[in-house]
Amino acid sequence: MASTHFRDGHPVMVDVGDKPPTVRRAVAEAVVVLPDEAGALLRAGAPKGDPVQVAELAGIMGAKRTPELIPLAHPLPLSSVAVTGTTDGNRVRFEASCSTAAATGVEMEALTAAAVAALTLYDMLKGATKGIVIEGVRLLRKEGGRSGTWTRSEDG
Amino acid sequence: MASTHFRDGHPVMVDVGDKPPTVRRAVAEAVVVLPDEAGALLRAGAPKGDPVQVAELAGIMGAKRTPELIPLAHPLPLSSVAVTGTTDGNRVRFEASCSTAAATGVEMEALTAAAVAALTLYDMLKGATKGIVIEGVRLLRKEGGRSGTWTRSEDG
Amino acid sequence: MASTHFRDGHPVMVDVGDKPPTVRRAVAEAVVVLPDEAGALLRAGAPKGDPVQVAELAGIMGAKRTPELIPLAHPLPLSSVAVTGTTDGNRVRFEASCSTAAATGVEMEALTAAAVAALTLYDMLKGATKGIVIEGVRLLRKEGGRSGTWTRSEDG
Amino acid sequence: MASTHFRDGHPVMVDVGDKPPTVRRAVAEAVVVLPDEAGALLRAGAPKGDPVQVAELAGIMGAKRTPELIPLAHPLPLSSVAVTGTTDGNRVRFEASCSTAAATGVEMEALTAAAVAALTLYDMLKGATKGIVIEGVRLLRKEGGRSGTWTRSEDG
Amino acid sequence: MASTHFRDGHPVMVDVGDKPPTVRRAVAEAVVVLPDEAGALLRAGAPKGDPVQVAELAGIMGAKRTPELIPLAHPLPLSSVAVTGTTDGNRVRFEASCSTAAATGVEMEALTAAAVAALTLYDMLKGATKGIVIEGVRLLRKEGGRSGTWTRSEDG
Amino acid sequence: MASTHFRDGHPVMVDVGDKPPTVRRAVAEAVVVLPDEAGALLRAGAPKGDPVQVAELAGIMGAKRTPELIPLAHPLPLSSVAVTGTTDGNRVRFEASCSTAAATGVEMEALTAAAVAALTLYDMLKGATKGIVIEGVRLLRKEGGRSGTWTRSEDG
Repeated sequence: MASTHFRDGHPVMVDVGDKPPTVRRAVAEAVVVLPDEAGALLRAGAPKGDPVQVAELAGIMGAKRTPELIPLAHPLPLSSVAVTGTTDGNRVRFEASCSTAAATGVEMEALTAAAVAALTLYDMLKGATKGIVIEGVRLLRKEGGRSGTWTRSEDG
Repeated sequence: MASTHFRDGHPVMVDVGDKPPTVRRAVAEAVVVLPDEAGALLRAGAPKGDPVQVAELAGIMGAKRTPELIPLAHPLPLSSVAVTGTTDGNRVRFEASCSTAAATGVEMEALTAAAVAALTLYDMLKGATKGIVIEGVRLLRKEGGRSGTWTRSEDG
Repeated sequence: MASTHFRDGHPVMVDVGDKPPTVRRAVAEAVVVLPDEAGALLRAGAPKGDPVQVAELAGIMGAKRTPELIPLAHPLPLSSVAVTGTTDGNRVRFEASCSTAAATGVEMEALTAAAVAALTLYDMLKGATKGIVIEGVRLLRKEGGRSGTWTRSEDG
Repeated sequence: MASTHFRDGHPVMVDVGDKPPTVRRAVAEAVVVLPDEAGALLRAGAPKGDPVQVAELAGIMGAKRTPELIPLAHPLPLSSVAVTGTTDGNRVRFEASCSTAAATGVEMEALTAAAVAALTLYDMLKGATKGIVIEGVRLLRKEGGRSGTWTRSEDG
Repeated sequence: MASTHFRDGHPVMVDVGDKPPTVRRAVAEAVVVLPDEAGALLRAGAPKGDPVQVAELAGIMGAKRTPELIPLAHPLPLSSVAVTGTTDGNRVRFEASCSTAAATGVEMEALTAAAVAALTLYDMLKGATKGIVIEGVRLLRKEGGRSGTWTRSEDG
Repeated sequence: MASTHFRDGHPVMVDVGDKPPTVRRAVAEAVVVLPDEAGALLRAGAPKGDPVQVAELAGIMGAKRTPELIPLAHPLPLSSVAVTGTTDGNRVRFEASCSTAAATGVEMEALTAAAVAALTLYDMLKGATKGIVIEGVRLLRKEGGRSGTWTRSEDG
């Protein structure tokens, strides 16, 4: 088996022209692990402005930039994008959902949205500590396309 | 202590106009953990084309897009960007280094470069499995600016 | 009634995946009010080059950037864009028309085109005076979608 | 007097290479006038999410896109950008401030930030009514450069 | 006959809203002619990294930027993009193929991909000599749309 | 001699951090060769709108996008950009000039400006014939930097 992103050794944006557009969805996540100083800064900032909302918004905008960032990704007419950040102690988890009606899926859009949201939160809290880590950027769920619905199992 | 990215509850791109430009460097990493099917695909692809080089290049280009992706990041005249991917079994580690002479640091550029490289490799190998995970997007080293040189300790 | 651009307090790009694509058009305008010095500069420039044509072109290109500028706007396959600037004494009025076949409308594209055209003319004439004002960026007409055709009334 | 943006009838990005970089600031505003339905929507949305903060953020990001939108504008290393939206009844006023150390000013950045913030608020409230109007996109203050400090007079 | 890109003297993005989307393909080329020093550099670089692959990738990404670069070009949902560089002595020929299902063709996408690939190779080899020339950026083949299939004749 | 754009086989944006910023200029050209039908269309279009001015403007804007298009190019603070198109029978020659004060040169910016201007003219005239060719994208002159001033010789 060879990667479909290379043809005779040359990178290609795979031809999806013979696949009918169908509804596709993808959900991905990224977790920002905050050392105590950064967790405190996040909680201090909350009353007056909302770093998590800024990060959510950056994630939504990042989803739209996916084909510019990922060289072999197709431009897709996104039907929806949502990014939700939830804080649990010193961890902020961003869950990104994207959908489209297209010949190819939106996994990269969801992953990019989650990653950009996490990087944006990092940026706003990095003054407190250099120890922030973004963990587990990964796909949670995928619907549509030839392989149908897939959900990550609990222990994945 | 409050986040400097909000002023009276409004998000701001912090004023760095009174800081002299100095040389700054940052190194960051991201690790792509490949299930066996994806590791096999990566090794199969290598002889004919190089997914890791594609990812490195995407990371370099991604560093240049940092101020477009991260809402409150400053535009910076990058002096250098390098992204190096090294494969160790089923793990590919991308290390990104950036430098500039500016009033603010390049941590976000290095982190964005590493993350975009990792996402790009994910894109090229995702046909093999949905189980790929990007782990540990984090800063390794930082030079210049008020806080001087910082290096992540082994157990960080 | 609550804004559809927030869901449980998180910003979202609204899901339009269940709406069929239909033809949609929108027309918007923006008016640049020029103090005398700027009006004179516009008229002096005309024989040798055409600031209004530069602004029209910038407006067309700006329409294509709408989903990058407006965070919760959907990417749309624009079928047409036209921006026409007409000068009447010291006022230049830009009228922008956009159309698409999509699940959501092109009002923001038309408004963005008109606003970018106006800002571009401002840029070229600002050397004459700081007193230029862009007035009345607003929708003039909208066709297609659930709400059908709407036209601004004379006294709107 | 002829526009400096044309040379022998060809558009040019004016040469500023012989001007030393100096500190420059600019403040601009744009006012969104909301019909009652949109004003109500804005107030309804506020408890759960903040459309004005979304608009402020879009304005900051828009400032960074100025040289892409305005054809003859110079790319500038922005030192700071802030956009503050204040609601007074059915009017939301966005004030944008930018600064840089460069050979040319940041008026267009401030004006673009204010205009993009206003367009973004329009987008989020347009479901309530088509009658929203963006009024008075204009410069309020300018510091630095050959012409020194300028402030719009009360009745400007 | 008048250019369809102007209407009453104003530039327009032509309305294609009444044309049904059909499959369209285009192939274009650009040739980089290398003086001996640059040809030697290309061959020296090959064992350790691949400038031609970098250029191919830049061409693919460039195709996706076409509507941002070419003012009156329509945004198109590209189904595929491939750029193949072949070296023959001191000449590197980039052939770019694009396809879509849309109301208008992809000639500009293929031409832009070929040109950007050629410029990128130029960038990587320009340290050797200032004498590199990009020759013959031109269309080779076009399929779909009203005018059907067209192939450049041998002596074109 | 090896390309400086690769280090141990990995692509890099070369470190220019140890080079002082100096004034640099570059001039490049691209020639669009029009078959008769396209030449006639260009002349027909001229009275009512100016395809060459549209192309000049696109070239100026293209110069600003150079670091996004050319993967290993540095972002540069351009001091000036001018693109001038001159028509001689069925040939339109675009000459692009750029300048900056930076640690690296602006050859790629001038070449990109000339190429994008040529592609834009192609777009506007392609309805007349598929036989248009862009010839001779090449550097004409370069000033500043270690290698000083270079001018292409007449027979280059």
